[in-house]
Amino acid sequence: EKIGKKAIIALREPSLGPVMGIKGGAAGGGYSQVVPMEDINLHFTGDMHAITAANNLLAAAIDNHIHQGNELGIDARRITWKRCMDMNDRALRQIVVGLGGKVNGFPREDGFNITVASEIMAILCLSQDITDLKERLGKIVVAYNYNGDPVTARDLGVQGAMALLLKDAIKPNLVQTLENTPCLMHGGPFANIAHGCNSLKATRLALKLADYVVTEAGFGADLGAEKFFDIKCRYGNLKPDAAVIVATVRALKHNGGVKKEDLAKEDIGALERGIANLQKHIENIGKFGVPAIVAINHFPTDTDKELAFIKGKCALWGVEAVVADVFAEGGKGGVELAEKVCSLISGQPSSFRYLYGLNLPIREKIEIINREIYGGRDVIFTDKALKELKLIESMGYGNLPVCMAKTQYSLSDNPTLLGRPEGFTLTVREVRLSAGAGFVVAITGDIMTMPGLPKVPGATKIDIDADGRITGLF
Amino acid sequence: EKIGKKAIIALREPSLGPVMGIKGGAAGGGYSQVVPMEDINLHFTGDMHAITAANNLLAAAIDNHIHQGNELGIDARRITWKRCMDMNDRALRQIVVGLGGKVNGFPREDGFNITVASEIMAILCLSQDITDLKERLGKIVVAYNYNGDPVTARDLGVQGAMALLLKDAIKPNLVQTLENTPCLMHGGPFANIAHGCNSLKATRLALKLADYVVTEAGFGADLGAEKFFDIKCRYGNLKPDAAVIVATVRALKHNGGVKKEDLAKEDIGALERGIANLQKHIENIGKFGVPAIVAINHFPTDTDKELAFIKGKCALWGVEAVVADVFAEGGKGGVELAEKVCSLISGQPSSFRYLYGLNLPIREKIEIINREIYGGRDVIFTDKALKELKLIESMGYGNLPVCMAKTQYSLSDNPTLLGRPEGFTLTVREVRLSAGAGFVVAITGDIMTMPGLPKVPGATKIDIDADGRITGLF
Amino acid sequence: EKIGKKAIIALREPSLGPVMGIKGGAAGGGYSQVVPMEDINLHFTGDMHAITAANNLLAAAIDNHIHQGNELGIDARRITWKRCMDMNDRALRQIVVGLGGKVNGFPREDGFNITVASEIMAILCLSQDITDLKERLGKIVVAYNYNGDPVTARDLGVQGAMALLLKDAIKPNLVQTLENTPCLMHGGPFANIAHGCNSLKATRLALKLADYVVTEAGFGADLGAEKFFDIKCRYGNLKPDAAVIVATVRALKHNGGVKKEDLAKEDIGALERGIANLQKHIENIGKFGVPAIVAINHFPTDTDKELAFIKGKCALWGVEAVVADVFAEGGKGGVELAEKVCSLISGQPSSFRYLYGLNLPIREKIEIINREIYGGRDVIFTDKALKELKLIESMGYGNLPVCMAKTQYSLSDNPTLLGRPEGFTLTVREVRLSAGAGFVVAITGDIMTMPGLPKVPGATKIDIDADGRITGLF
Amino acid sequence: EKIGKKAIIALREPSLGPVMGIKGGAAGGGYSQVVPMEDINLHFTGDMHAITAANNLLAAAIDNHIHQGNELGIDARRITWKRCMDMNDRALRQIVVGLGGKVNGFPREDGFNITVASEIMAILCLSQDITDLKERLGKIVVAYNYNGDPVTARDLGVQGAMALLLKDAIKPNLVQTLENTPCLMHGGPFANIAHGCNSLKATRLALKLADYVVTEAGFGADLGAEKFFDIKCRYGNLKPDAAVIVATVRALKHNGGVKKEDLAKEDIGALERGIANLQKHIENIGKFGVPAIVAINHFPTDTDKELAFIKGKCALWGVEAVVADVFAEGGKGGVELAEKVCSLISGQPSSFRYLYGLNLPIREKIEIINREIYGGRDVIFTDKALKELKLIESMGYGNLPVCMAKTQYSLSDNPTLLGRPEGFTLTVREVRLSAGAGFVVAITGDIMTMPGLPKVPGATKIDIDADGRITGLF
Repeated sequence: EKIGKKAIIALREPSLGPVMGIKGGAAGGGYSQVVPMEDINLHFTGDMHAITAANNLLAAAIDNHIHQGNELGIDARRITWKRCMDMNDRALRQIVVGLGGKVNGFPREDGFNITVASEIMAILCLSQDITDLKERLGKIVVAYNYNGDPVTARDLGVQGAMALLLKDAIKPNLVQTLENTPCLMHGGPFANIAHGCNSLKATRLALKLADYVVTEAGFGADLGAEKFFDIKCRYGNLKPDAAVIVATVRALKHNGGVKKEDLAKEDIGALERGIANLQKHIENIGKFGVPAIVAINHFPTDTDKELAFIKGKCALWGVEAVVADVFAEGGKGGVELAEKVCSLISGQPSSFRYLYGLNLPIREKIEIINREIYGGRDVIFTDKALKELKLIESMGYGNLPVCMAKTQYSLSDNPTLLGRPEGFTLTVREVRLSAGAGFVVAITGDIMTMPGLPKVPGATKIDIDADGRITGLF
Repeated sequence: EKIGKKAIIALREPSLGPVMGIKGGAAGGGYSQVVPMEDINLHFTGDMHAITAANNLLAAAIDNHIHQGNELGIDARRITWKRCMDMNDRALRQIVVGLGGKVNGFPREDGFNITVASEIMAILCLSQDITDLKERLGKIVVAYNYNGDPVTARDLGVQGAMALLLKDAIKPNLVQTLENTPCLMHGGPFANIAHGCNSLKATRLALKLADYVVTEAGFGADLGAEKFFDIKCRYGNLKPDAAVIVATVRALKHNGGVKKEDLAKEDIGALERGIANLQKHIENIGKFGVPAIVAINHFPTDTDKELAFIKGKCALWGVEAVVADVFAEGGKGGVELAEKVCSLISGQPSSFRYLYGLNLPIREKIEIINREIYGGRDVIFTDKALKELKLIESMGYGNLPVCMAKTQYSLSDNPTLLGRPEGFTLTVREVRLSAGAGFVVAITGDIMTMPGLPKVPGATKIDIDADGRITGLF
Repeated sequence: EKIGKKAIIALREPSLGPVMGIKGGAAGGGYSQVVPMEDINLHFTGDMHAITAANNLLAAAIDNHIHQGNELGIDARRITWKRCMDMNDRALRQIVVGLGGKVNGFPREDGFNITVASEIMAILCLSQDITDLKERLGKIVVAYNYNGDPVTARDLGVQGAMALLLKDAIKPNLVQTLENTPCLMHGGPFANIAHGCNSLKATRLALKLADYVVTEAGFGADLGAEKFFDIKCRYGNLKPDAAVIVATVRALKHNGGVKKEDLAKEDIGALERGIANLQKHIENIGKFGVPAIVAINHFPTDTDKELAFIKGKCALWGVEAVVADVFAEGGKGGVELAEKVCSLISGQPSSFRYLYGLNLPIREKIEIINREIYGGRDVIFTDKALKELKLIESMGYGNLPVCMAKTQYSLSDNPTLLGRPEGFTLTVREVRLSAGAGFVVAITGDIMTMPGLPKVPGATKIDIDADGRITGLF
Repeated sequence: EKIGKKAIIALREPSLGPVMGIKGGAAGGGYSQVVPMEDINLHFTGDMHAITAANNLLAAAIDNHIHQGNELGIDARRITWKRCMDMNDRALRQIVVGLGGKVNGFPREDGFNITVASEIMAILCLSQDITDLKERLGKIVVAYNYNGDPVTARDLGVQGAMALLLKDAIKPNLVQTLENTPCLMHGGPFANIAHGCNSLKATRLALKLADYVVTEAGFGADLGAEKFFDIKCRYGNLKPDAAVIVATVRALKHNGGVKKEDLAKEDIGALERGIANLQKHIENIGKFGVPAIVAINHFPTDTDKELAFIKGKCALWGVEAVVADVFAEGGKGGVELAEKVCSLISGQPSSFRYLYGLNLPIREKIEIINREIYGGRDVIFTDKALKELKLIESMGYGNLPVCMAKTQYSLSDNPTLLGRPEGFTLTVREVRLSAGAGFVVAITGDIMTMPGLPKVPGATKIDIDADGRITGLF
């Protein structure tokens, strides 16, 4: 708004689990914060809890159905629906439930995802309204019966109760930045294990209210952006005008092989090695036909020479790079960026297109993403994944888009391959159907849908005193 | 307020689990409701979710500590802290967590309680302020180490983060009746498996604001009232002026052996057999030195003869019985009751006393409750319970009050013994230390701290339509 | 044979599990051994292994049946048949099997007994011939179906294969003492957790071959003898002529409260306190109408005064006591005992009778055993046990004899009550149907059907060298 | 012996599990049997039971050690030793043990192998004598401690007791054919999941006793023969003189794509397609420098044209093919084969060599086997397998030979690829160290080390009658 345009930000809500874990609170820092920060990082408006409750109601209904006579013939060995919790809790990844004799039902193998990885989070983010929400909830495939046919939430009759539990959670939450820019904060899937975009409802609401809507897509253009374009834009019929690729000198030096403790030192050589990573992200955005600009998020340790080097490289690649310092200066520090984005939009029309067509086999879609976006050579599917693919296509879900679950630390599925790796082989070890959300999740490498706490959890540093003063949260 | 006195009601919050299960929504019916009913029965102000989160953060911290090297020497076979969820989910009663190899930690046996049965719910209800809350959270005994010494939440360093998660939940919630009487609704432990009273903070706030504070203690005088007097009043230094014993013609006939489908028919014989149950509750209140009055909650099927019979019996026992019809008439229907309560308070001073002294051995306290309140003859402790008792006393917790977990369907621990059973043997099968809440839980009979869903769960009848209209919740 | 009569001994085979555990090898010591001792204590003729195989074939058939479609409708929560292993392995007491996904079948709770506690061991010991064996194997109740009806081994069609696996195991094994007395060693149930007698087939064979057959019944007259009389004699129509009650000065002093390390010192006071235990065993034998004699198994530390004291007491009670020193002197040391037994048999005719009639309710049978044999006052049944009793009687098995599982360390179910405890309460925590063996097992106290290894297992001291010399086995 | 030479056969013992499962009894058929067939197929001399006992003693010692204080610091998440049972029992493949509270020890994930897949079976087969046996038993790596170092059976001190349990099992068992040719039957590892050869001790004993020793190596030249040459011959310093490749018309037609029900019909086309499989086996034997001959095991449905076709093809490949009809004619039917083998041996000296050198990295050894013997193109290792490989080599076991676990239904790891598949990718999903046996097991495809029972288990058809007549065993 510093440049006289009406803008709204549309962001994702943070998850409580990582707050207690390694990540610390989300919601920005310095002069670039949305408030009330504490509440946003704790229970906020309860959206996550509502999703947890809806997810676990469905799980309880499954086990209860089997216990009460199993009229639907659910095969307890083939239940795909997991429980969830908004906590980093590795002990719940793989469990056995229903122990303790007849009165506690039938034992079976189960596990918890973190709430943001629940299909219900994705459904909430992609639903148009409460009717669509209920429709999608009903379509969730929770298990297979003894004949091998899918069993859905609708078969269990709980989609209405689930929708009721979500009646407030589907409403976008309004917060603001420290400089009073309105911000719709709604939906919070992780971009490494889910589709990683805020809710369609919030984005649409913002589009109605403002001239410019700024939204985020978690992690790099390999994860968040690809899924934003291929999943969210497709379902929401959105046509993005421009993409801002956020880069930091530090991250590029890290990609050039510099250790964490040396990131503060000027190192043009490392920058030269690491910038191939940025180049790949720029190329990736280009594949979707969307004009791009690079925003260099300024850190005090960045040197002019380093910033100039990046700008020079970007110029070579035909993309403008602008330094933004919103942390230290707030909105003022982003004025140049905002102006450049506006002129980019008016000057260079977007010719947005999807990366792949829905009619291709799922396997091919994954191979395209790997080849085009990740830069990999080929894709290996485990036997398990192949069986799942076959089953999913045989049930008529072959035409869904694919939601990749991949490490955010590398363009590949191997977190140690920095820079711009090439010629690697991507391993798909599991494929899960999210029939309600409307996509197929491909799980690569060692990515996990339930994080663990670190050796010294963030929670041990967090406190609140008698006057309500909070410490250790950020 | 119909009789010109300033009154406040202090109630418990409902749990979501049973709403989806068999019970249907709580919060009253007819003209005797607190509003907004839907929200109260769903997520309300998120208190339950906050308790769930704090409970499960502690659980995650335990498993994480062991996984990360187990500096405290926690014995994985002797972890007493359970996870919790606000759901009726029998499959979670007894589980094995930590499966799936090294990366998921050490396997161990675990289980979930329903959130209202969490010690944190009890702590929340008994805490004076945030400092006391944090103190109590820190004292929770979660496990024993290899030397047999207790390990607390403070040892794990998460009491601050837990308190932060509860920073809003410890604040009483203000709602109102349909006739605009203010109502503080806060804390929701079940009286069969927990201490069953709303929060001390809410009760105290109400005492500051009004002339008369009406509070509830779940189920009969054997459960809620005993625990209200011996635990909550003791910790809060409260001196109740009078007790209203709520009775219904239907429940007394049921205690007289009438089947559910015949409860609508006049049956003085059954009433005569069943009224011994009411007599015992009246006697029980007397043992605490508190003046009592009986409120007969009027149902359309009650006959005048039946009502007269109850009144006559009560008169014989020296206690007044008043018919109240708040369901059909709202506040007006309770005017007589209110007047009688007021005159009881002014006319008959309370000489409140506790049932047992804290210096008695725990075993003796339980025996006193059984003999005096339940009317039982003796108490059997399983070997497990005896070992636990010994351990608890050896750690110096022998002087805590006892929180009985017992079926609400009978004065005994056998749900089929109706009326006023005598000479029975109470079986204590497990004793759990709640060092944070400040009591010892004695689990009798088959009582469970995690309910299950019924054959046709309430959730399958619940729905919300495109316009937000909710059906099936009540 | 030293006294000119043809005698055969009929003993039980040892179990391998305890050999590796705390007990060391069985089969006697000093000059009172049966040979080949090493082999007897290891695999011997493979009878235990055959029983293990038959037991586990049945278990595998159950899980396989469920996995393959479960035509019989077996309720996986109500499978009563356990796997077994001839090993002391506490980790196998309670397990979950069938994990790992669809291909491994349905998860369920299970456990292993030690082989000697398998119902098949009991069946083997009570069967008349291979036809009877197969009949009994077929009758084993392994589970209940969804209608609550029993499922048998015959329903699974494996009784023939089980019988085949046992074709050699049902044949008695012939060994000999160091002095060449023939000894039939066959069947090895523990007397604390099973019926504790060698096989009927071996006893009958011995009766055909010799004038006098000496057999054993494990542990005291409260365990082995009662079960020998009420179960084995009943099924085999045997009429014992006399009973030899084996006592030691050391054990009686232990029952008088002397610590293990002080047992070598003369202590008439302790003997006086402890001898009530022997008196009770003598009385117990009397209740079956069988003439008895006491054999004092001589130890070098026994003093003449002590031996004389015992003899004097026994004389008072009308029973002769004879000192036998077979350990140091072999058969010669038992000559007096043998002569006395022979004259007892010829002089005092046995009027053998059972303790209880089969038509009594099972509960009453247990109460009779407790009152008459153990000396207890009353019996408590857990809810679990009561439900099982009801079920067993409803299926028509109420007229079976009872096989008590009880600690051998006390006449009561509490191993710390020495001497002759009275007025105690026996707790039956579980009742299991052994429809094939033909009895009902009542499990009291903490008795376990799968032992564990001690801190320093016997196995760590056992060795064999290049020349086959064995050390550490005894 | 029909041709005047002294010959001894050295075979493997059958496993009981498959006898009760799908396979029916082993030990031949028709006139080509070893006797006593029934006993060989049941408990035989108890070798399998002894191996089971030794294996499970070690397992019990591990859990007991942890339970008793875990002085060695065994990491319960990293125990590699599994329990075993001689039964086809899929429910035991993946289990959780140690449940039920403190008294039952620490819960952990475990599983059972079938006995023949136990490392102890391999050790028994490769040991030179009891000293070597004990040495190897002591070397077994059972787990890793908290520092990541290996824990061995010797650390637990049970290798002596294990050796004692195996004292008779290491002695070869002598049986005979129906025509009285002596046969040493000893050791029974499966060739798909273990090294698949009878014991070295038996082979050596046979070599001392006879002119010609005929031994077997399970399944095709891809499995049994490769492991016989590269593992057994290497450890035993054996130099085979010739190899007999057994083929059947039926199997070759099956490899040519003919369905089971059509195998009886003459089909030269199918034979032509399938014979590439035989060609590959012939080539494989050649790679070891051993002269080969093909024995066509005659079936009544084989046509002369078919037999001639095979002979012709073999002649083209420079190998003689001889028809043998030992089933119908006994030794007489094998006379021609025997003569041809003798002349092959005398005429063509063996230049035996191993396929790979021990100094190569394990990964390379596996790649050589895949490329040279299976005919595959490349090998994929799962992340799990790669980690295990790295660990094994870091502990200094990189120079061990490799024991492949692979399906017997195809030359590849995909059981559906018949004939002579080429260009396939072999997947190694797990690598296990058998430090006692002295090899590294590479598990490919879906191969399992514990079979399951089929829909109609063999056990249901097996019976024994009152006269001891056995039916259904073969």
